Amino acid sequence: MNWLDEVPWDEDGLIAAVAQEFSTKRVLTVAWMNREALQRTAETQHAVYWSRSRKKLWRKGEESGHVQKVRELRIDCDSDAVLLVVEQVGGIACHTGRESCFFRKLEKGKWIEMDPVLKDPAQIYGKT
Amino acid sequence: MNWLDEVPWDEDGLIAAVAQEFSTKRVLTVAWMNREALQRTAETQHAVYWSRSRKKLWRKGEESGHVQKVRELRIDCDSDAVLLVVEQVGGIACHTGRESCFFRKLEKGKWIEMDPVLKDPAQIYGKT
Repeated sequence: MNWLDEVPWDEDGLIAAVAQEFSTKRVLTVAWMNREALQRTAETQHAVYWSRSRKKLWRKGEESGHVQKVRELRIDCDSDAVLLVVEQVGGIACHTGRESCFFRKLEKGKWIEMDPVLKDPAQIYGKT
Repeated sequence: MNWLDEVPWDEDGLIAAVAQEFSTKRVLTVAWMNREALQRTAETQHAVYWSRSRKKLWRKGEESGHVQKVRELRIDCDSDAVLLVVEQVGGIACHTGRESCFFRKLEKGKWIEMDPVLKDPAQIYGKT
Protein backbone atom coordinates (compact mmCIF):
# COMPACT_ATOMS: atom_id res chain seq x y z
CA MET A 1 0.00 0.00 0.00
CA ASN A 2 1.17 3.51 -0.81
CA TRP A 3 2.36 5.25 2.37
CA LEU A 4 -0.05 8.13 1.70
CA ASP A 5 -2.98 5.71 1.67
CA GLU A 6 -2.23 4.72 5.25
CA VAL A 7 -3.33 8.14 6.43
CA PRO A 8 -7.00 8.22 7.49
CA TRP A 9 -7.55 11.76 6.19
CA ASP A 10 -10.22 13.56 8.19
CA GLU A 11 -13.52 14.73 6.69
CA ASP A 12 -11.74 17.80 5.32
CA GLY A 13 -8.97 15.63 3.87
CA LEU A 14 -6.43 16.86 6.41
CA ILE A 15 -4.00 15.58 9.02
CA ALA A 16 -2.39 17.53 11.89
CA ALA A 17 1.33 18.19 11.46
CA VAL A 18 3.69 19.12 14.28
CA ALA A 19 7.08 20.64 13.47
CA GLN A 20 9.93 20.25 15.95
CA GLU A 21 13.38 21.84 15.65
CA PHE A 22 16.12 19.27 15.28
CA SER A 23 18.75 21.15 17.27
CA THR A 24 16.84 22.96 20.01
CA LYS A 25 14.03 20.32 20.18
CA ARG A 26 11.50 23.13 20.55
CA VAL A 27 8.04 22.41 19.23
CA LEU A 28 7.71 25.13 16.61
CA THR A 29 4.30 24.90 15.00
CA VAL A 30 1.15 22.86 14.58
CA ALA A 31 -0.29 23.10 11.09
CA TRP A 32 -2.32 21.00 8.68
CA MET A 33 -1.56 18.97 5.59
CA ASN A 34 -3.69 17.50 2.86
CA ARG A 35 -2.47 14.62 0.74
CA GLU A 36 -0.65 16.84 -1.74
CA ALA A 37 1.07 18.81 1.03
CA LEU A 38 2.33 15.64 2.68
CA GLN A 39 3.49 14.21 -0.64
CA ARG A 40 5.33 17.40 -1.57
CA THR A 41 6.88 17.60 1.89
CA ALA A 42 8.30 14.11 1.44
CA GLU A 43 9.45 14.74 -2.13
CA THR A 44 11.07 18.10 -1.54
CA GLN A 45 12.19 17.53 2.06
CA HIS A 46 10.82 20.98 2.83
CA ALA A 47 7.64 21.51 4.85
CA VAL A 48 4.54 22.19 2.77
CA TYR A 49 1.26 22.72 4.63
CA TRP A 50 -2.37 23.33 3.74
CA SER A 51 -3.55 26.75 4.82
CA ARG A 52 -7.07 26.31 6.17
CA SER A 53 -7.69 30.06 6.12
CA ARG A 54 -6.35 30.70 2.62
CA LYS A 55 -7.48 27.30 1.34
CA LYS A 56 -4.30 26.64 -0.59
CA LEU A 57 -0.96 24.91 -0.32
CA TRP A 58 1.52 26.87 1.72
CA ARG A 59 5.20 26.23 1.28
CA LYS A 60 6.46 27.21 4.73
CA GLY A 61 8.82 30.15 4.33
CA GLU A 62 7.65 31.12 0.85
CA GLU A 63 7.37 34.77 1.93
CA SER A 64 9.68 34.94 4.92
CA GLY A 65 12.46 32.70 3.66
CA HIS A 66 12.12 30.78 6.92
CA VAL A 67 11.78 27.40 5.29
CA GLN A 68 11.79 24.16 7.26
CA LYS A 69 14.22 21.52 6.00
CA VAL A 70 12.83 18.12 6.91
CA ARG A 71 15.20 15.68 8.56
CA GLU A 72 12.60 13.15 9.69
CA LEU A 73 8.98 12.55 8.87
CA ARG A 74 7.11 10.45 11.43
CA ILE A 75 3.53 9.32 11.92
CA ASP A 76 1.77 8.40 15.13
CA CYS A 77 0.28 5.09 16.22
CA ASP A 78 -3.21 5.75 14.90
CA SER A 79 -1.91 7.67 11.88
CA ASP A 80 -3.82 10.84 12.64
CA ALA A 81 -0.84 13.15 13.11
CA VAL A 82 2.58 13.56 11.56
CA LEU A 83 5.73 14.89 13.16
CA LEU A 84 8.34 16.76 11.14
CA VAL A 85 11.76 17.05 12.68
CA VAL A 86 13.16 20.07 10.87
CA GLU A 87 16.00 22.48 10.57
CA GLN A 88 14.26 25.83 10.94
CA VAL A 89 16.09 28.20 8.61
CA GLY A 90 16.58 31.60 10.25
CA GLY A 91 15.69 30.12 13.63
CA ILE A 92 12.24 31.67 13.34
CA ALA A 93 9.08 29.64 12.74
CA CYS A 94 6.44 32.10 13.94
CA HIS A 95 5.04 35.00 11.92
CA THR A 96 5.50 37.13 15.05
CA GLY A 97 9.27 36.81 14.64
CA ARG A 98 9.76 34.27 17.42
CA GLU A 99 11.42 30.86 17.28
CA SER A 100 8.23 28.99 18.16
CA CYS A 101 4.55 29.73 17.78
CA PHE A 102 4.14 28.44 21.36
CA PHE A 103 5.44 31.59 23.02
CA ARG A 104 2.58 32.10 25.48
CA LYS A 105 2.44 30.16 28.71
CA LEU A 106 -0.41 29.83 31.17
CA GLU A 107 0.47 31.50 34.45
CA LYS A 108 -2.06 32.23 37.17
CA GLY A 109 -4.98 32.10 34.75
CA LYS A 110 -3.42 34.26 32.04
CA TRP A 111 -1.59 33.52 28.79
CA ILE A 112 1.74 35.29 29.26
CA GLU A 113 4.23 36.03 26.46
CA MET A 114 7.48 34.34 27.37
CA ASP A 115 9.79 34.34 24.38
CA PRO A 116 11.64 37.20 22.71
CA VAL A 117 10.88 38.54 19.24
CA LEU A 118 14.05 37.71 17.32
CA LYS A 119 13.23 39.81 14.28
CA ASP A 120 10.62 42.46 13.55
CA PRO A 121 7.88 40.89 11.38
CA ALA A 122 7.88 44.06 9.24
CA GLN A 123 11.47 43.24 8.35
CA ILE A 124 10.76 39.56 7.79
CA TYR A 125 7.92 40.25 5.40
CA GLY A 126 9.66 43.11 3.63
CA LYS A 127 7.25 45.82 4.64
CA THR A 128 9.95 48.24 5.68
CA MET B 1 -11.22 37.69 29.63
CA ASN B 2 -11.08 34.14 30.97
CA TRP B 3 -8.09 32.33 29.51
CA LEU B 4 -10.38 29.55 28.26
CA ASP B 5 -12.42 32.06 26.29
CA GLU B 6 -9.34 32.98 24.27
CA VAL B 7 -9.42 29.58 22.59
CA PRO B 8 -11.32 29.62 19.28
CA TRP B 9 -12.75 26.11 19.77
CA ASP B 10 -13.33 24.40 16.44
CA GLU B 11 -16.80 23.38 15.21
CA ASP B 12 -16.58 20.25 17.39
CA GLY B 13 -15.52 22.34 20.40
CA LEU B 14 -11.98 20.98 20.31
CA ILE B 15 -8.37 22.14 20.15
CA ALA B 16 -5.31 20.09 19.18
CA ALA B 17 -2.96 19.29 22.08
CA VAL B 18 0.67 18.24 21.69
CA ALA B 19 2.48 16.60 24.61
CA GLN B 20 6.26 16.86 24.83
CA GLU B 21 8.45 15.14 27.41
CA PHE B 22 10.25 17.63 29.63
CA SER B 23 13.47 15.63 30.00
CA THR B 24 13.94 13.84 26.67
CA LYS B 25 12.15 16.58 24.64
CA ARG B 26 10.48 13.86 22.58
CA VAL B 27 7.11 14.72 21.12
CA LEU B 28 4.94 12.05 22.72
CA THR B 29 1.38 12.43 21.50
CA VAL B 30 -1.09 14.57 19.66
CA ALA B 31 -4.56 14.44 21.13
CA TRP B 32 -7.61 16.67 21.49
CA MET B 33 -9.15 18.71 24.26
CA ASN B 34 -12.52 20.29 24.77
CA ARG B 35 -13.03 23.15 27.18
CA GLU B 36 -13.52 20.90 30.18
CA ALA B 37 -10.42 18.82 29.36
CA LEU B 38 -8.26 21.93 29.12
CA GLN B 39 -9.69 23.37 32.32
CA ARG B 40 -9.13 20.12 34.23
CA THR B 41 -5.62 19.82 32.82
CA ALA B 42 -4.78 23.26 34.18
CA GLU B 43 -6.48 22.66 37.52
CA THR B 44 -5.03 19.21 38.19
CA GLN B 45 -1.69 19.69 36.39
CA HIS B 46 -2.26 16.28 34.84
CA ALA B 47 -3.15 15.84 31.17
CA VAL B 48 -6.85 15.30 30.48
CA TYR B 49 -7.92 14.87 26.86
CA TRP B 50 -11.15 14.42 24.96
CA SER B 51 -11.40 11.03 23.31
CA ARG B 52 -12.95 11.56 19.89
CA SER B 53 -13.56 7.84 19.43
CA ARG B 54 -15.07 7.21 22.88
CA LYS B 55 -16.64 10.67 23.06
CA LYS B 56 -15.69 11.24 26.65
CA LEU B 57 -13.05 12.84 28.83
CA TRP B 58 -9.93 10.76 29.06
CA ARG B 59 -7.57 11.25 31.96
CA LYS B 60 -4.29 10.19 30.34
CA GLY B 61 -2.98 7.15 32.21
CA GLU B 62 -6.28 6.29 33.89
CA GLU B 63 -5.86 2.64 32.87
CA SER B 64 -2.13 2.33 32.34
CA GLY B 65 -0.93 4.49 35.21
CA HIS B 66 1.16 6.37 32.66
CA VAL B 67 -0.10 9.79 33.63
CA GLN B 68 1.39 13.00 32.30
CA LYS B 69 2.35 15.57 34.92
CA VAL B 70 2.10 19.00 33.37
CA ARG B 71 5.05 21.34 33.87
CA GLU B 72 4.07 23.93 31.28
CA LEU B 73 0.93 24.69 29.35
CA ARG B 74 1.45 26.82 26.26
CA ILE B 75 -0.73 28.06 23.42
CA ASP B 76 0.28 29.00 19.89
CA CYS B 77 0.09 32.35 18.13
CA ASP B 78 -3.36 31.84 16.64
CA SER B 79 -4.61 29.93 19.68
CA ASP B 80 -5.55 26.80 17.75
CA ALA B 81 -3.18 24.38 19.45
CA VAL B 82 -1.81 23.88 22.95
CA LEU B 83 1.51 22.40 23.98
CA LEU B 84 1.89 20.46 27.22
CA VAL B 85 5.40 20.03 28.49
CA VAL B 86 5.04 16.99 30.71
CA GLU B 87 6.77 14.47 32.88
CA GLN B 88 5.67 11.19 31.34
CA VAL B 89 5.28 8.79 34.25
CA GLY B 90 6.65 5.37 33.36
CA GLY B 91 8.43 6.82 30.34
CA ILE B 92 5.69 5.39 28.12
CA ALA B 93 3.07 7.54 26.40
CA CYS B 94 1.93 5.16 23.65
CA HIS B 95 -0.59 2.35 24.09
CA THR B 96 1.85 0.15 22.12
CA GLY B 97 4.29 0.36 25.05
CA ARG B 98 6.66 2.83 23.43
CA GLU B 99 7.87 6.18 24.74
CA SER B 100 6.27 8.15 21.92
CA CYS B 101 3.34 7.53 19.61
CA PHE B 102 5.57 8.79 16.78
CA PHE B 103 7.55 5.57 16.45
CA ARG B 104 7.19 5.14 12.68
CA LYS B 105 9.43 7.05 10.30
CA LEU B 106 9.10 7.44 6.54
CA GLU B 107 11.96 5.69 4.79
CA LYS B 108 12.01 5.02 1.05
CA GLY B 109 8.24 5.27 0.76
CA LYS B 110 7.39 3.12 3.78
CA TRP B 111 6.47 3.83 7.39
CA ILE B 112 9.13 1.93 9.35
CA GLU B 113 8.92 1.14 13.08
CA MET B 114 11.96 2.72 14.71
CA ASP B 115 11.55 2.67 18.47
CA PRO B 116 11.59 -0.23 20.91
CA VAL B 117 8.59 -1.49 22.84
CA LEU B 118 9.55 -0.75 26.44
CA LYS B 119 6.77 -2.77 28.03
CA ASP B 120 4.30 -5.31 26.67
CA PRO B 121 0.87 -3.63 26.36
CA ALA B 122 -0.73 -6.76 27.84
CA GLN B 123 1.24 -6.07 30.99
CA ILE B 124 0.48 -2.36 30.95
CA TYR B 125 -3.26 -2.92 30.68
CA GLY B 126 -3.35 -5.80 33.11
CA LYS B 127 -4.42 -8.47 30.65
CA THR B 128 -1.82 -11.00 31.73
